[in-house]
Amino acid sequence: MNEKQMVGEKAAEYIKDGMVVGLGTGSTAYYTIKKLGELVRNGLNITGIPTSEQTAKLAVEQGITLVDFKDVKQIDVAIDGADEFDTNLNLIKGGGGALLREKIIGNAASTFIVIADSSKGAEKLGAFPLPVEIVKFGSEMTSRKIAELGCEPILRLNGNRPFITDNGNYILDCDFKQIDSPDELELQLNMIPGVVENGLFVNMAKRLITIENGELVEKTR
Amino acid sequence: MNEKQMVGEKAAEYIKDGMVVGLGTGSTAYYTIKKLGELVRNGLNITGIPTSEQTAKLAVEQGITLVDFKDVKQIDVAIDGADEFDTNLNLIKGGGGALLREKIIGNAASTFIVIADSSKGAEKLGAFPLPVEIVKFGSEMTSRKIAELGCEPILRLNGNRPFITDNGNYILDCDFKQIDSPDELELQLNMIPGVVENGLFVNMAKRLITIENGELVEKTR
Repeated sequence: MNEKQMVGEKAAEYIKDGMVVGLGTGSTAYYTIKKLGELVRNGLNITGIPTSEQTAKLAVEQGITLVDFKDVKQIDVAIDGADEFDTNLNLIKGGGGALLREKIIGNAASTFIVIADSSKGAEKLGAFPLPVEIVKFGSEMTSRKIAELGCEPILRLNGNRPFITDNGNYILDCDFKQIDSPDELELQLNMIPGVVENGLFVNMAKRLITIENGELVEKTR
Repeated sequence: MNEKQMVGEKAAEYIKDGMVVGLGTGSTAYYTIKKLGELVRNGLNITGIPTSEQTAKLAVEQGITLVDFKDVKQIDVAIDGADEFDTNLNLIKGGGGALLREKIIGNAASTFIVIADSSKGAEKLGAFPLPVEIVKFGSEMTSRKIAELGCEPILRLNGNRPFITDNGNYILDCDFKQIDSPDELELQLNMIPGVVENGLFVNMAKRLITIENGELVEKTR
C-alpha cells in the first residue's frame, strides 16, 4: 500500500454516522473517498460536500450522497490533502487551482483533517510556490504589490493563456523560498485590494495524518 | 453652485501637468472630471485611469486621454467620492457596486483625495450599510461568517436577481449600525474565505474636501 493510500484510508476512520463531510480533491483524498464509498455501501450514513467537480463525480460513483453547499449549516469534518505542511500543521494548498473552494469548506468545518505523504513535510513552508488567487482587473498592479512582500509572482498559465479559476480569477504562483511567519504573510496578502484568497491555511488543520519512517503518524493541534 | 460641484471642482486644483490621475465614479466625481476636461482643453496634459465604464465614457467626452491600467506603474493622484466619511478620513464606499476597482486604484495612488458633500460626514462610520464583495460559491456560508461579526448581511439585488459586480461576484450590504474600529473590522472581513473585498477604506485618503456651514473645508491626514 503506498503512502497516499495509507493516510487517505486512515482519515476515513474519523467519519461517523450522520456526519456532513467535506471531501477534498487530489491523489490522496482519492483514497479517502474510495474508502468512504466502501463504508457507505456497508451501511455508513453520511452526506458529502465536494471541493471540486472531479471529487463530486468520484463521490457519486462511490455511492456517497452529496448536498448543495447552500443547504448546509455546518460541516462536521473536512478531509483534504496539502501541497506542503509544517510542524505547526500550517499548510500550503492550491497547486490544483481550487484553493478558494477548499478554504471555504475547510474553514466551515468543525474539524479539518489534512492527509499528506512524507514528501510534503517541511520545517518551514515556502519551498512550494504559494498560489494566490487575484481578480483580473488590475492584475499587474496587484502582482507588483505582492512582489513587494518578497517574491516574484508568476501568472499561472493553461497552455498559452492565463489559467482561470472556477471563480473567474487568475492565479499567481509566488515563490517566497521560506515563509517565516505564515500568519503574518496571510494577513498581508489578504489586505491587498485585488487579492481574493491565498493558499496559506494557517491554524486551520486540527489533525495531520502522514508517514514518518514508513509508519502512519498522527499529529493534532 | 451645489456642494457636490464645489468640492468636485476644488479637487481639480491638485492636478498638475504630467500627472497620472485616478478618476472616481458618481455624482461628485462627475464635477471633477468636467473641470479637468475644461483644464485639458486649456492645455493641461494629464492621463486618466477610470474607476468605471461610466467614468471612462465621461472622461473621453471631456477630451481626457485614458490609459489601460496594465500600462501604468504609478498613479499620482486619485480623486473619488464616498458614501460616508469619519473624522479620521476613513471611508465607506461601494454603494455603486464598484468598490473593488475603486479600492485598487485608491490603494495604488500616491495621494488619494476624497470629495464629499456635508451629508456624508459622521462621527463614526456605520450608518451607511457596508458593501462587501463575495464570491458566489459558498455565499450562504460566507454570509453567516460575516453575520457573526455583528450584522445581518443582505444580498444586493438587481430587480429579482442578485446584483453581479464587474468581477462576477455578489455584494452583501452589511448594516453594522456603528463601526467602532474600522481597521479591525476590515481585517476580520478580509480574513473570511469567500470575501473578495469590503467597502472600508481605512488610512487610505490623504485629503478630504467637504463643506461645513456652507464653506469649503479641507482636512489632511
